[in-house]
Amino acid sequence: MTPLIESLAIRWYGDRLDLLDQRRLPLESHWLSLYSAADTAKAIRDMVVRGAPAIGICAAYGLALEARRFAEGDNAAGLENAFRMLADSRPTAVNLFWALERMRPLIQQQSGMALAEMLANEAQCIHAEDRDSNQRLAEHGAALLPEHCQVYTHCNTGALATGGHGTALGVIRTAWQQGRIRGVIAGETRPWLQGSRLTSWELLQDGIPVSLVVDSAAGHLMAGGEIGAVVVGADRITANGDTANKIGTYALAVLARHHGIPFIVAAPSSTVDMTLPDGAAVVIEERPADEVRAFGGTQMAPSDTPVRNPAFDITPAALISAIVTERGVVPTPNRDTMTAHMQSDIPGHE
Amino acid sequence: MTPLIESLAIRWYGDRLDLLDQRRLPLESHWLSLYSAADTAKAIRDMVVRGAPAIGICAAYGLALEARRFAEGDNAAGLENAFRMLADSRPTAVNLFWALERMRPLIQQQSGMALAEMLANEAQCIHAEDRDSNQRLAEHGAALLPEHCQVYTHCNTGALATGGHGTALGVIRTAWQQGRIRGVIAGETRPWLQGSRLTSWELLQDGIPVSLVVDSAAGHLMAGGEIGAVVVGADRITANGDTANKIGTYALAVLARHHGIPFIVAAPSSTVDMTLPDGAAVVIEERPADEVRAFGGTQMAPSDTPVRNPAFDITPAALISAIVTERGVVPTPNRDTMTAHMQSDIPGHE
Repeated sequence: MTPLIESLAIRWYGDRLDLLDQRRLPLESHWLSLYSAADTAKAIRDMVVRGAPAIGICAAYGLALEARRFAEGDNAAGLENAFRMLADSRPTAVNLFWALERMRPLIQQQSGMALAEMLANEAQCIHAEDRDSNQRLAEHGAALLPEHCQVYTHCNTGALATGGHGTALGVIRTAWQQGRIRGVIAGETRPWLQGSRLTSWELLQDGIPVSLVVDSAAGHLMAGGEIGAVVVGADRITANGDTANKIGTYALAVLARHHGIPFIVAAPSSTVDMTLPDGAAVVIEERPADEVRAFGGTQMAPSDTPVRNPAFDITPAALISAIVTERGVVPTPNRDTMTAHMQSDIPGHE
Repeated sequence: MTPLIESLAIRWYGDRLDLLDQRRLPLESHWLSLYSAADTAKAIRDMVVRGAPAIGICAAYGLALEARRFAEGDNAAGLENAFRMLADSRPTAVNLFWALERMRPLIQQQSGMALAEMLANEAQCIHAEDRDSNQRLAEHGAALLPEHCQVYTHCNTGALATGGHGTALGVIRTAWQQGRIRGVIAGETRPWLQGSRLTSWELLQDGIPVSLVVDSAAGHLMAGGEIGAVVVGADRITANGDTANKIGTYALAVLARHHGIPFIVAAPSSTVDMTLPDGAAVVIEERPADEVRAFGGTQMAPSDTPVRNPAFDITPAALISAIVTERGVVPTPNRDTMTAHMQSDIPGHE
């Protein structure tokens, strides 16, 4: 059976959502089949799928699956429950809430199978639009990179984390295709090692030169002149440009500033949350201690070691050289420039 | 049999050196017995023992073992070879070379069993002096810490890494005993996870409150006001105060400066190498790729992923608030203050 729409880690069949289990990459390509909102919420919570845009897309599909499950009767009550489950699955990425809110008005318009089909269509649109957004933002971002440099990136923001192509990694892919950059340095991104497991894998598949490093080596490489720009994604960008992203992003921004290196945030505009004034208003998810104490079944620290495991941090807008979305570039992010950017037309979307 | 002298990970028996295999901590306490310089060089290279002061102590014992092995004949030629093997085992920590050079003049003075005993005595002195130095430098360092703060530390600089008590962790131990600090935040210290495996273990054993974090969380915790000081050890301090230490130290120094947090380097004066003008002259060891690509037998990155794995970095003196040795405190490290410090008398050692 051919999917109705697919990207590297997401396949949509109308009545089923298949996800590539990103916890088992790069060693195994194992697909899970999901049939309900509960399945989908669990997959998001357990990090079968991760990456803010991909989470948003999957939440939309999860809602569509739920509407179809109860298409015979009145599915409104079940959908309210599904909304809550999906919204509670991860707290920081705004794309999750954005996608759910985009689906919500449709529920008032229809019911039964008509509603199920309407929600499925909308979820497919979110998926396809995200892929297109990435292509656009990648063009904008690539133009900002110094020529012939090595780019440092953190976490995974590629085709696995999005509807396709990628945000920060989309910028890097496009810049490489243009012959603009020399290669990539990928931080391994503890504790989940998205850099080791996912970014290295995506870049090797595309034949883009990559060197993997431990996260704490970034400063040393900057001091040695080996890094020309830092490009990262975002889980939530607030109204003033403050950016919540994977833990370690803030440290990279401070280091980039210290070394005079451009620090670029790349994300679709669905990541921008104009309802939050600044980064202090973002809920930072604290994840389980064993993600730090153990890896791959191997215990590292004594099992009773107390752990702090914040999954994200906040990078203040003042440390960000530019925010790039599918709408274009915000060169000095602040409340005014972000507001103007979010009110602008998207080129080609008049 | 009772050791002639021992510390947490080193036991000396005169004709045998037993080392606690630090690669297997905290899960197993497994001791290895060494009988030659070759055994000792291999243990240093393979990181059975690590930590600049502990490496220096073990190299001295390795030389003593070799002199004893050939005590019946002329042991001079064998010792030259042993010198080279031990000196080549790790390139960055200066204590290794310092300990070997301290042993060298004795070889001209004696031979046979008399030489073997002289070298064994000298190695024991190096071991005992390092422990005493740590006690002294810990007193000096503790006085520099803001009261009631949490201290951030990197890597392991405790009793495992030294002749006893520890350098940066010695400062922390003493400050805790004095009721001066509230607790410790330990960076896990990828790729070898000395923070998870060794520092957490030492602190839990001593009942000192510790929270373990991934290295890239340090900036986030500083921004949240949770860290009052950063204290680290050193593998080599050059004549102007530039400091080579575990990869990630430099990034912590930049972050500490950005947040106005004291950044303190604690090391015995045997770590100071006045023959090198500055950090640019330090050889940075590049270690195998699989230390980053895999852990505990679990592959993380695709096995053909290129890796950069520098084991150390250089923190310029300008980012260091104070260097602390057993001689006292250098509050603004530079060539002049370091020279004066190294020429000063050690209190109690007139």
